[in-house]
Amino acid sequence: MLVPELGADEVVLRGPEAHHLRDVLRLKAGALVEAFDGNGNVAAGSVAAADQGGVVLTLGQPQPSEAEAQLDVTVAVALLKGDKLADVVRQCTELGVMRFVLLVTRHADVTDMSHAKLLRLQRVAEEATRQSGRARVPQVAPPTPLATLSWSGAALVADPRATGTLTGAATAGRLTLVTGPEGGLATSEVEALVARGARAVTLGPRILRAETAPLALAALALLGGGQ
Amino acid sequence: MLVPELGADEVVLRGPEAHHLRDVLRLKAGALVEAFDGNGNVAAGSVAAADQGGVVLTLGQPQPSEAEAQLDVTVAVALLKGDKLADVVRQCTELGVMRFVLLVTRHADVTDMSHAKLLRLQRVAEEATRQSGRARVPQVAPPTPLATLSWSGAALVADPRATGTLTGAATAGRLTLVTGPEGGLATSEVEALVARGARAVTLGPRILRAETAPLALAALALLGGGQ
Repeated sequence: MLVPELGADEVVLRGPEAHHLRDVLRLKAGALVEAFDGNGNVAAGSVAAADQGGVVLTLGQPQPSEAEAQLDVTVAVALLKGDKLADVVRQCTELGVMRFVLLVTRHADVTDMSHAKLLRLQRVAEEATRQSGRARVPQVAPPTPLATLSWSGAALVADPRATGTLTGAATAGRLTLVTGPEGGLATSEVEALVARGARAVTLGPRILRAETAPLALAALALLGGGQ
Repeated sequence: MLVPELGADEVVLRGPEAHHLRDVLRLKAGALVEAFDGNGNVAAGSVAAADQGGVVLTLGQPQPSEAEAQLDVTVAVALLKGDKLADVVRQCTELGVMRFVLLVTRHADVTDMSHAKLLRLQRVAEEATRQSGRARVPQVAPPTPLATLSWSGAALVADPRATGTLTGAATAGRLTLVTGPEGGLATSEVEALVARGARAVTLGPRILRAETAPLALAALALLGGGQ
C-alpha cells in the first residue's frame, strides 16, 4: 500500500488506504504487507493493529524498489478525446513510465482538461502503480503547449513520415517520448522538435491510433532495450 | 475500402461498403480510391458511378500491400473479462498481427464466448485493418483449450517467472505469442508449452495486466526487430 513516508518503524494510516486494508482486504494484526512511498522505495512489514481509528503498520528498512526501470521515461502525449488518456496512463504506468506531460497541439480536437479530469488521471496512475507492483507513482502534468515542452536527455517524436527507428535509443538516463493527437502532429511541429534536438522515429508502415502510439513507444523503450 | 476480390477491372459494391462510400464519405464519380481485398493486396482506382444501385469502382492491377509485416504474428490470448479483448484485437491489428486465437486457460474467469461476441471481435479487426491502412484482415479464431493450441515456427509465452527476453526473436517467418488471463497462466501450463518447444519470456519486473501483455509483446515483435 501507498504510505506518506517510509523510514519510521510505525506508520498510521487513516482514510481510504486504511479503509482498503481493513474493510476490503480485511487484514488483521499480524498480516504481512509491503508498503511503498510513491517515490520508488518499498519496505516490508506487518499490520500491528486495524480498527476504526485506523491501521497501524510496523515496517522494516526502506529499500529502492527493484520494479523501477533504469530508464527514466517521460510520455508527452497530446490531449485525446473521451477517455483514451486514462488507458494510455494506465498501460504506460504498467510498462514503467515515470511521468506524463499532456500536450496542446495544432490538430487537436481537445485543447484543455478540467482539474477534475486531471486528478482522475493522477488516480489512474496511482492505481496502476499499485497493481503493477511499482513503488513510484508517475506524475501527470497539466496541459502545456507543445512549443513549451522542455526535456533533459534524449527525446523521440513519433512521426509516420520519419524513417528513423528506435534502434540505438538510450537504455539508461532520461528519455522523452512525444506522440500526437488523433489528427497527427503538423509537419512544422515535428520539425520544431527536431530543430530542438529531438529525433523523429517511425512506428512502421501501419497507421497507429493516437492512443496506441505511446504504448508501442513505451514498450519498445522500456522492454526492448537493455531493460 | 474492402472489396470481395481484386483483379477485375470493375468492381460493384452494394450493402454497407457502398453505403459508407456513397453516403458517409460522399464520394462522386471520378474520386480516387484504394481498394484492398483483406488478403494482403491493394489496387488503386476511382469511382465510376455511385447511385442507389451501388458503387462501381474501376481498379488497376492488384499489388501486395507494403503495410503488411514480414513477420507473420499470431496472438494467442486467454479469454478476458468484459470488453478487454476488443481493445487487444484493435490495437494488435494496428501493430500488424495476422491472426488471433482465443484460449481457454486454467485460471480464466471466462471460459466461453458467444458467437455474437466473436463476430463482433472479427468486425473490430476489420475496422482496425481499414483504419491502420492495412490490406489483410486478421482472423479471430474461436476459443480453444490451451492444450490444443498448435503453431508452426517459433512460439513465445509471456511469464512473469521467466528470465529470458525477446532478444533474438524471429524477425521473419512465423511467430506465435501466448499470453494468459487476469489470474495468469498456471506454472504447469507454461511448462507444457515449453515442453512443446515454446520459449518463456519475461516482460520485465513490473506486472502487466492481461490486456497489456499482448500489446507489449506484439510491439516488441513487430516494431522492435528487423521490422
